[in-house]
Amino acid sequence: MSTREARGPEGQSPEARGLSRRGLFGLAGVGAAGLALGGGAGVAAGAALASAGPAGASQYPFHGAHQAGVTTPAQDRLHFAAFDLAPDATADELRALLDAWTAAAARMTRGLPVGAGGAVDGPPSAPPDDTGEALDLPPAGLTITIGYGPTLFETADGVDRFGLAARRPAALTPLPRFSGDALRPEWTGGDLCIQACADDPQVAVHAVRNLTRIAFGTAVIRWSQLGFGRTSSTSTAQQTPRNLFGFKDGTANLKAEETRAIEENVWVAEGDDVAWMTGGSYLVARKIRMLIEGWDRTRLEEQEAVIGRDKRDGAPLSGGGEFTAPDLAVLPAASHVRLAHPDLNDGIRLLRRGYNYTDGTDELGRLDAGLFFLSFQRDPERFVRVQRSLAGHDALNEYLRHVGSAVFAVPPGVPEGGSYSDALFG
Amino acid sequence: MSTREARGPEGQSPEARGLSRRGLFGLAGVGAAGLALGGGAGVAAGAALASAGPAGASQYPFHGAHQAGVTTPAQDRLHFAAFDLAPDATADELRALLDAWTAAAARMTRGLPVGAGGAVDGPPSAPPDDTGEALDLPPAGLTITIGYGPTLFETADGVDRFGLAARRPAALTPLPRFSGDALRPEWTGGDLCIQACADDPQVAVHAVRNLTRIAFGTAVIRWSQLGFGRTSSTSTAQQTPRNLFGFKDGTANLKAEETRAIEENVWVAEGDDVAWMTGGSYLVARKIRMLIEGWDRTRLEEQEAVIGRDKRDGAPLSGGGEFTAPDLAVLPAASHVRLAHPDLNDGIRLLRRGYNYTDGTDELGRLDAGLFFLSFQRDPERFVRVQRSLAGHDALNEYLRHVGSAVFAVPPGVPEGGSYSDALFG
Repeated sequence: MSTREARGPEGQSPEARGLSRRGLFGLAGVGAAGLALGGGAGVAAGAALASAGPAGASQYPFHGAHQAGVTTPAQDRLHFAAFDLAPDATADELRALLDAWTAAAARMTRGLPVGAGGAVDGPPSAPPDDTGEALDLPPAGLTITIGYGPTLFETADGVDRFGLAARRPAALTPLPRFSGDALRPEWTGGDLCIQACADDPQVAVHAVRNLTRIAFGTAVIRWSQLGFGRTSSTSTAQQTPRNLFGFKDGTANLKAEETRAIEENVWVAEGDDVAWMTGGSYLVARKIRMLIEGWDRTRLEEQEAVIGRDKRDGAPLSGGGEFTAPDLAVLPAASHVRLAHPDLNDGIRLLRRGYNYTDGTDELGRLDAGLFFLSFQRDPERFVRVQRSLAGHDALNEYLRHVGSAVFAVPPGVPEGGSYSDALFG
Repeated sequence: MSTREARGPEGQSPEARGLSRRGLFGLAGVGAAGLALGGGAGVAAGAALASAGPAGASQYPFHGAHQAGVTTPAQDRLHFAAFDLAPDATADELRALLDAWTAAAARMTRGLPVGAGGAVDGPPSAPPDDTGEALDLPPAGLTITIGYGPTLFETADGVDRFGLAARRPAALTPLPRFSGDALRPEWTGGDLCIQACADDPQVAVHAVRNLTRIAFGTAVIRWSQLGFGRTSSTSTAQQTPRNLFGFKDGTANLKAEETRAIEENVWVAEGDDVAWMTGGSYLVARKIRMLIEGWDRTRLEEQEAVIGRDKRDGAPLSGGGEFTAPDLAVLPAASHVRLAHPDLNDGIRLLRRGYNYTDGTDELGRLDAGLFFLSFQRDPERFVRVQRSLAGHDALNEYLRHVGSAVFAVPPGVPEGGSYSDALFG
């Protein structure tokens, strides 16, 4: 009644069978598009190859000096999850979780199923290691990026939860309250986060689902967010996308090709903070609900004055083309572009990596949608500086509500054979 | 302070400018991939061309004998919305809404913005006609499919709401309650529905958002659903996708190429029902939550026994390959494939067009995910017949909860120059 017997002797290595089977899919994609390389100078080449090849063929290395998913050309789709550790979880359990996540992330970003048994090659008498819905899909440019929230390093009831209090990065403190914040606890904070970006949403959802499954008993999802379309370019090879206000977004964003600016603005340098964070970054996540209906009833000239850009081509209202530097003296004083500009923010540039989201419809029949803002910076204070310029002043605030917020320390990349836990526990 | 003046005289036809601008994008895509033709015999060719060209280049005609979005090769992404008409909406307002929706749908499926003013070409002193977030995107295979719920034809407080009671299709009645149903009113029913399918989710979301905006004051969204990955193939040119249980789904689904079976099972024939539904179909939507965590702890052999198929290649457990006909005498009696098989359901085949969904995480930290089941059939009774076989018997029910449900009459296609309102109002 089962064809399981026809699969060959149970003694055969499931790993070998799983790899060879998936290898067929992976190599077909890679062969057609070339192997896209992520990280450092390889980023630009990766972007070009990815756009030239069939959808989903690109693959970014999991191991390296920095984590992938920061300067990697922003993939089209996102599944983001913040986790809380169980109240009784121990340091050993956290370490074991991070080790298991490392192994799973290294496999999934190569297009392989989680674990040696995969979804179909393990013993029939056991649950599969992998849930299987990405079994026929290529890597789809999947990156998995981990972060640690301030609460991971805190003491609870006078007890150092995981013995990590002394290793807490100095820069990792909860964000201050900003003018106009309407944060909801169910979309705020978290001990850990996973950012899964891919060009196929099923691949991103599969990654978060399987990491969640591995965490069973140790950590549980606190909140999660799907993003259906990127709102930023992080490579000069990418076209500038549009946000749900219909404007090009991220024109002046930091690009991976700006090597020096990336070093200055994104990566934690030696001496900046605790040593284990060198080569890492800080991630700020803000769930920003857009008040779509009000915006859609606003005159075109008013929309453009609020943003500070032409809606058609994204040029600043001070003239020129999309990439012309705006003349801040000419832009409307409260326009978003002006207030967010580095010249008014101590030269700070954030690497933005946000996504359009919609969670369906709210109880009033309004589109429950907006921007899931993600930015990477060398120190969260840089975000705070820019957000203080915007909060309470930006003309766009009339159409926005910040409803969720979190900050995470993003450790450096994991070297071949290493684990997430190495840097954290030292 | 604005570059608006540089765009040329306001007297220039915005329509001409809008068309030419978007035309550049549209033609670039079409030129690279060829024009994909939807409907009838063109479907298979369309599918092949779409997969050969760059993502998003495919375009399906809006006008035709049948609505697009039924036998059209299932696109990757979905935004579905059910609407309720305002309590005080009149027949004239409904007719005007349908006329406006027709015009907008015809434009958006060609990759054009809604309305002559578009998102950037109207007068600066007015809100744009289009919200703009799809401005740089190709048609992405967008189809927009409309349906009418039973409540549209009902009397409220003894009053025939829109004078449509006499035009009600005989087959359009609410679905009966099935064993195990756990329906929630907020995901059930609706006067109207719009199914927007596209290969780019931003294009599908843009379509529903703009149709919702047009409906302001007349109709409001009752519920909506995003689907991130198709779970069915509707063309032999498509690979069978996997559902969130990790199994290939829709292997035995009706395919557009099976011209005779489509006529027999999908399209309303002359004499079947009210004349205006000839060439139409009936759409059943079921939001089916999957109890992912329980499933993921189930042994592989048990998973396969529940489904009735091999998890790896989708072959029935009675042997052969994915497309081998199952031997129903050999399959486990309660397996899903056996109980859904036409041989046990009076030969009925449904055209399934469902999508994997996730709405994030529930209050217990579990993935709030499942299958948004959509099927098209000549008569909703055909769905009822099959679902009665499954409800209360299917071994899969242990891992499922039907939480939303709706049925809609899907009118035939709109001829060139016509409107949705023509068939409905006669």
